[in-house]
Parts: sequence; C-alpha cells; structure tokens
Amino acid sequence: MNYSMIKYTLGWLLMFMGVFFTVPLITAAIYWEPAFFSFLIMIAISVGLGLLMTLKKPKNSTLYAKEGFVIVSASWILLSLFGALAFILSGATTSFVDALFESASGFTTTGASIFGDVESLPRSVLMWRSFSHWIGGMGVLVFIMAFLPLSGGQNMHIMRAESPGPEVSKLVPRVKKTALILYVIYFMLTFIMFALLLFFDMDVFEAINTAFSTAGTGGFGFRNDSCASFTAAQQIVITVFMLLFSINFNSYYLVLRLKFKDALNSEVRAFLLIVAVAVGIITADLWINLTTEFDSVWEALRHAAFTVSSLISTTGFSTVDFNLWPALSQTMLVIVMFIGACAGSTGGGIKVSRILILFKGMSRELRTIVHPRQVKKITIDGKPVDREVTRSVNAYITTFIVVFTLSLLAISFEEKDLITNFTAVTATINNVGPGLGGVGPTSNFADFTAFSKLVFTFDMLAGRLELFPMLILFSPSTYKRT
Amino acid sequence: MNYSMIKYTLGWLLMFMGVFFTVPLITAAIYWEPAFFSFLIMIAISVGLGLLMTLKKPKNSTLYAKEGFVIVSASWILLSLFGALAFILSGATTSFVDALFESASGFTTTGASIFGDVESLPRSVLMWRSFSHWIGGMGVLVFIMAFLPLSGGQNMHIMRAESPGPEVSKLVPRVKKTALILYVIYFMLTFIMFALLLFFDMDVFEAINTAFSTAGTGGFGFRNDSCASFTAAQQIVITVFMLLFSINFNSYYLVLRLKFKDALNSEVRAFLLIVAVAVGIITADLWINLTTEFDSVWEALRHAAFTVSSLISTTGFSTVDFNLWPALSQTMLVIVMFIGACAGSTGGGIKVSRILILFKGMSRELRTIVHPRQVKKITIDGKPVDREVTRSVNAYITTFIVVFTLSLLAISFEEKDLITNFTAVTATINNVGPGLGGVGPTSNFADFTAFSKLVFTFDMLAGRLELFPMLILFSPSTYKRT
Repeated sequence: MNYSMIKYTLGWLLMFMGVFFTVPLITAAIYWEPAFFSFLIMIAISVGLGLLMTLKKPKNSTLYAKEGFVIVSASWILLSLFGALAFILSGATTSFVDALFESASGFTTTGASIFGDVESLPRSVLMWRSFSHWIGGMGVLVFIMAFLPLSGGQNMHIMRAESPGPEVSKLVPRVKKTALILYVIYFMLTFIMFALLLFFDMDVFEAINTAFSTAGTGGFGFRNDSCASFTAAQQIVITVFMLLFSINFNSYYLVLRLKFKDALNSEVRAFLLIVAVAVGIITADLWINLTTEFDSVWEALRHAAFTVSSLISTTGFSTVDFNLWPALSQTMLVIVMFIGACAGSTGGGIKVSRILILFKGMSRELRTIVHPRQVKKITIDGKPVDREVTRSVNAYITTFIVVFTLSLLAISFEEKDLITNFTAVTATINNVGPGLGGVGPTSNFADFTAFSKLVFTFDMLAGRLELFPMLILFSPSTYKRT
Repeated sequence: MNYSMIKYTLGWLLMFMGVFFTVPLITAAIYWEPAFFSFLIMIAISVGLGLLMTLKKPKNSTLYAKEGFVIVSASWILLSLFGALAFILSGATTSFVDALFESASGFTTTGASIFGDVESLPRSVLMWRSFSHWIGGMGVLVFIMAFLPLSGGQNMHIMRAESPGPEVSKLVPRVKKTALILYVIYFMLTFIMFALLLFFDMDVFEAINTAFSTAGTGGFGFRNDSCASFTAAQQIVITVFMLLFSINFNSYYLVLRLKFKDALNSEVRAFLLIVAVAVGIITADLWINLTTEFDSVWEALRHAAFTVSSLISTTGFSTVDFNLWPALSQTMLVIVMFIGACAGSTGGGIKVSRILILFKGMSRELRTIVHPRQVKKITIDGKPVDREVTRSVNAYITTFIVVFTLSLLAISFEEKDLITNFTAVTATINNVGPGLGGVGPTSNFADFTAFSKLVFTFDMLAGRLELFPMLILFSPSTYKRT
C-alpha cells in the first residue's frame, strides 16, 4: 500500500476543499451572515492541513487498483467529516452525528436531511448544502485529477472507483482530458438550467441552489415544502433537468460530435422507456384513485412526471406528498428508486445499464437451457459485454442485497415500522433522499438514533461509490502485503 | 419437441393421480363422508384419461433438456388443475380460481389458503390438502420416474428440472435408484415423526396430517389456529422436524453410510447457523419488547424457534400471531423466508446453497479488485464450483427479482397496503404460506381478486419449480424448431 501517495492525494483534496468553501463564504459575505467566520476558519483548516500533507511529494507515485479504491473512499469520508465540521461551526446543528449525516447526504447527492425547518438556516449554509451536491454529483477526485500534477495512466483506477456504472469508458485517450470534457458538459448544463429558472421568475439565490441540487441529482431544498410552492413552469424545468442529469454524460459528448444514433444507446432508450411506463401507470392510478386531489388529468400527469423523474434520478425533490398516494403508485416509485439513473450520470441507484446486463444474462440462461448448443455472448448495442463485466455486475447485485439486508436489520433495532425502515435504507443506499412512512417527503431523518444515522451515512457513501470501495477500505485483507 | 413423449408422461402422471386420490377416498370411507363419491369420480376421470393417453407408447423416447422442463411444468399445472377439481366436486368451494389456488398451494407445499374456517371442511378434504403437500414436497415426477418403464439416462433432465437447488447430484450412478433411496428416507422420516406425535398424545388423524404437512414443509393445518392449541411437546416435535425436512436429503444418505463429516457440509452448517442467529435475535427482541406476552424467556425461545423453523423451512405453521411481533423480529422473519431451506430438501425459498455461492462470488470479486493477479475459483467444501453453476445461480437471482417485482406490481392494482402486497408475494414465491399484514398467520388469501390469485398461483408454481421451468413453458422460443 502506497501510504505516502494516499496522504499526498488526500492533502490535495483538502486544499480543493478550501476552494470549495469559498462559495458559502461569498454567500455569507453577500448576506452579512455570521457564518462567514465559520467558513473562513474551515478554509484555514483545510488549506493549512492540505499544505502540510502535500509538502513532500512522494517518490513513488504508482497507484494500483486497491490504492485507487482506498483513496476514493478515504477522500469521501474526509469530505464528509470536513463538511460536517462546517455545519457545527456555523451553528446549524450541535450534534456531530447529525452534521456528518447531513454532510455525507450532501456530497453523496442523497438529499436526506436531519433539518426539519430548512428555512431557518443561514443562506450560506443552504448554499453549502446545494453546492456539496454539485461537487459530489460529478465526483470530486475526477475533478482533482483533471488538475493534479500527476503522471497520467494511473488516474484511471481512481476514475473507475469513483465513477458510477459497470463500465467506465474514456471519451478520449487521456483520462485528464476525458474528465475535463465531462466537467465542461456538467457546467454548461447547470448553467442552462440556472438561466431557464431565472427566465421563469426564480430569484438568483434560489435558481443557483436549485440548479446545483438538480445537477448533482441531490435534492436538498431551501424551502420546507421542497418544490411544492414553485410555479408549474419552474417544476417542469426541474423535471426535464432531473431527467437530463440522469443520462450518461458520454451521450452529450456524442451529441456534440453529432453522433446522434450512438448517443441514443440502449441504456438511454431503456431509461426513457422505464420513465414513460412509470409515469403512465402512476398518472392513471392517481387519476382513478385520488380523484379529489387533482383538478385535471394533466395536473396528475405533471406531478407523476415530477415525482418519477425525482426518484429515478435519485434527486428526491417533491411537489406533493407521495406518502399519501395509492399502493400501486408507491410500489412503482420504490421500484424506480432501486433502478436509478444511467451509468456515467450524476444519478444513483443500481443503474439502468446494470439492469440491462442482468436482463440479458437472464434471457441468455433461458436460451441456454432450451438450446444448449447455441450459447451466445451477451451483447449491448452490438458490442459483446466482457465476462469480467457481467461477473462484476452479478457480484454488485449480491453485495447490494447483503449491504441492504444488514443495514435493514441494524436499523430495525429501533423498532420503527417496516415501511419506514425498508424505504429509509432504500432512500439512502440509492442516494434518493426521501422514502415512505416516517421518512416520507414531508418528514426527515432527525428522529433516528445516532447509531442508525451512522448506518445510513455508511449506506449513502457505499451507495454513491458503488459499494466495493467502501468495503475494500474496511476489509483487513486490503492492507496485507502479498 | 417430442409431443408424444410429453403426452405419454402426462398420462402416467394422471394414473398416479388416481392412486393418490385413494388416500382421501379411504379417509372419506372411514368417516362416512359424502366426499367419498367426489374422490371416486376423480379416480375414474384421472385413471380413464391416463389410460387413454398412455395407450400408445411413443416410438421415440428421447427427452432433451427443454422437454424435461416442459414436462415438469405441464405436469405441475395438470396436478393443480385435477386437485382443484377435487375441491370443487367435494363442495369445499364453488370458485374454480379459489380451488386452483388451494390446490397449487398444496402441491407446491406453500400452505397459503383461501379457507378461513378449515375446521368446517370434511376430514377427507383436510387429508387431501395435507397429502398434496406430502406428494409435492419430494417431487411427483421423480417419484414416477422411479417406477416408469422408461430407459434410464434421460430422466436426469426431469429430475434436474424438478429438484430444488443449484446442483443435482446423483447419490448412486442410476437416477431411478437415487430417486428410490430419497423416497425411502422421506417415508422413514415422515413415519418417525408420525410415531412421535402419537407418543405425545396426538390422535391418529391429526398426527398423519401434521406429519404429511411438515414432511412436505407445506403448512396446511386442520385447526383454525394452525398449531397454537397443540401441546408444547407437540410443538417442539414439529419444530425439530421442520428443520430436519429443510436439510439436504443427501445428508441423511451420508449419515446412513456413516459419513458424518460429509453429511455436515457447509450448506447444512450455514443453515443451522442462520437458524441459531435468527432464533437468538428474535428471542431477545420478544423478551425485551413483548414483556407481557411470554411468561418466561424459555417460552419466548420456544415460539421464536418454532416460528423461525416454520418460515425458513417455508412450512408456514404458527403457534402465535407473529403479525403482532416487533419490527426487528418481523424483519428477521421476512429475511429467513427469502433464504429458505437447503437444496435437495422439501423446503422452498432461494436455498442456502445459492446464498453460499453468491457470498463466495462477492468475496472473490472483492479479492479480485484488491489482488488482481490472484483470481481463484469459487470452492464449496473444497470442491470447485463450475462456472455454469455460478452463472446459473446469478441468473436465478435476477429472474427471482424480475418475477417478484412484476408480481408485486400486478397485485398492487388492488391497492392493498404495501406490507400485505410485499409479503404476500414473498410468501407465495418462496412457498412459505403466511406473510404479514393482511396475509398474516391469522388471515388468509380469500380476500384477493381472482386475477391476483392467479398471479399467486403462478408464483407458487414458479417458486416450487425454481422459476426456469415455468418461464420456459410459457416462452414461445421453446416451441421453435432449430
């Protein structure tokens, strides 16, 4: 294990953290908030510690896969801890576990909160919450890699460990350039969304926050009713952008290069199909069973589309309390929470590409039984899928079920009801935010014990980093010499 | 597709069905019940139709894997249909869908019922319900294969399609002899249980029924309170035998051959460990949170042990209403319902051996990431697991999730609550019987629409036959020439 290289990278991370804190610092300055000083202190600590850790450049900069995984998970824990410190210093909460939960929820773009009354929080803290979504959405280390003075080849391990989805493809031969292209697309889409929200009469502060939260598919809001009091036009803009940020960013690169057919690959098509089916079923269900709730079928459609987009993109915004929706709609919502977004997007969940690979594996198995001599490889978009990828996707699903089940048992010691427990784990491990029952869109996670909050914090981090990095960090065999 | 061979085998199945109906016929004769005539008619129909279908022995007796799967799933549907006819003729119910549900629930050893008041049913019908568990537990076709005048080699396909678990091993070189050995063990264990129940003061009729229901890990009872009014001693006997029937029958064969170490293989050890952990957690949970319910910790332990054994063996008997237990216990119970029994037993669920293979696949994946050059094969009890087996287990889990999710959506159209819906699918696809909420141990499935009951019937059959046979039966590509 190359510890000096790990220390060096984490040092750089802390210096970037110092840069990140300037955003809430400026916000605090604009609104004359006392939180200004807390963010100033945070910058001093982060940059100071970061400088100390990067004083000595390691002689050996070689990073193997396991170091990549350890760096990524250690970085995200460090991010969450420093973010938590900011919540404490700014006086947003006095409980460190609460602060850690909120901070991890921010960076992992979960959006589950322990604050019931967000409107009472300083604007700089609200900005920090939304901005942490924006940082976490695209991946911090990929961002740093784009600037770090390191030799090229080994960053791939870090990129692979931090980026969502079963396969990580480089758009261009160099990793740094790939990371830069993705960040430019991310920045552009966020800016377009911000401009559109301004156009539809949102004020600047709210538009920035909403754009950050949506871009990262996070879900922290600045109003106690999430998006319920937004205008219909604003809600529609958010709906569209939640879906846009759920699509593999490679597709936007392909669109820019005018390769439209490649951009609309089978994952994107499957994703849009799932959204359409879910919206269709829920709209019908709402219109038939909640007749008094909606004035017209279009209003039911608008709320169904917003909610499905919010939960499949794992953003977690809400316009209505879907905790009161009929069972069919709720079941459909829980299912899309598990499915999640496309690989290579900012969204969470299991990812549509994994679901596709699993489906193809299933139908191949059935074909193999019926026609044992015609065994074929799984293909997606005409390209054969590597056996390593299918194996890894299968191991991912097992790991997901194991982490899910153990978390569910761990938080069940609190004896809350089954729906609350089940959807609380669903909402955190898939980085969605709200669930049903006691963690529905009008409730929050404040009510859980510190132990459960730590379990959720682990689940959010494990879910965001796609399970393996966090397990590898905590597995003793990682540190054995071979 | 060798249709004449399929017809021929189904014909033999019907003749055996005629033989099976003699058990309730004799019961009806003993108790002077008018249902005697319904069973007489059923025997006439079954044997008559069976004779017609077996008049011409097929020239070509070759069976390929796909014919094996089609024969097995078609047989089980036929069994369920004829069993349903018996419920209609005997006047137990007038709804054919209800009768079909009950009959499939019997043969698949699920034990979910549409009868609220079983005590009002004729004794011959109660006997038929328990006996259908006993027939279905060990597999009908494996039984027939042991007697059918067919050449040997091809029966393996049928045995593989009907027997539970990822790997089917022959105890002795010949399939027929293997089937016979397993049936002798099954019969002996059932008889010992029957004798023990008699010894502990159960009357003959009740002891036979209980032994049949337990041996098949079915769960149909003859009292409205399931096993609550049994004595503690009787309940303990049932607990022990539910566990015994959940263990791979190969282990008993190895015990008889004095190979004790081989008998206690890793699947059996894992199974017993899961039972111990679940019983421990639930006992503590009950004793801490339901203080008024149990007189002593031993009583809590006894009920916890009974309930865990009942649900992990997928029998479904109950001594108390676990619908009223605290959340942790209920979560643990739902988890063991999914895990299920050992492969090669009469129990259902996903099977412990599959869980073991999945766990090993997960830990291999983590090792591969950390030490990419040390990729090793998965081994169980020192023997390497074939890549085909791991692939098939992974496809099984995917298929399980897909069938589960689609069934859940299909029955959610009824707008019952989420817990009822979720555990109703859990209880049927895993062949358990009772769930939680509206399908708890004191409730039944009568309340669902005919459509939902058909979904459950499919799930019970699909679960018992381990998914692939039912999907292959209904897949058009099975019937295409190649």
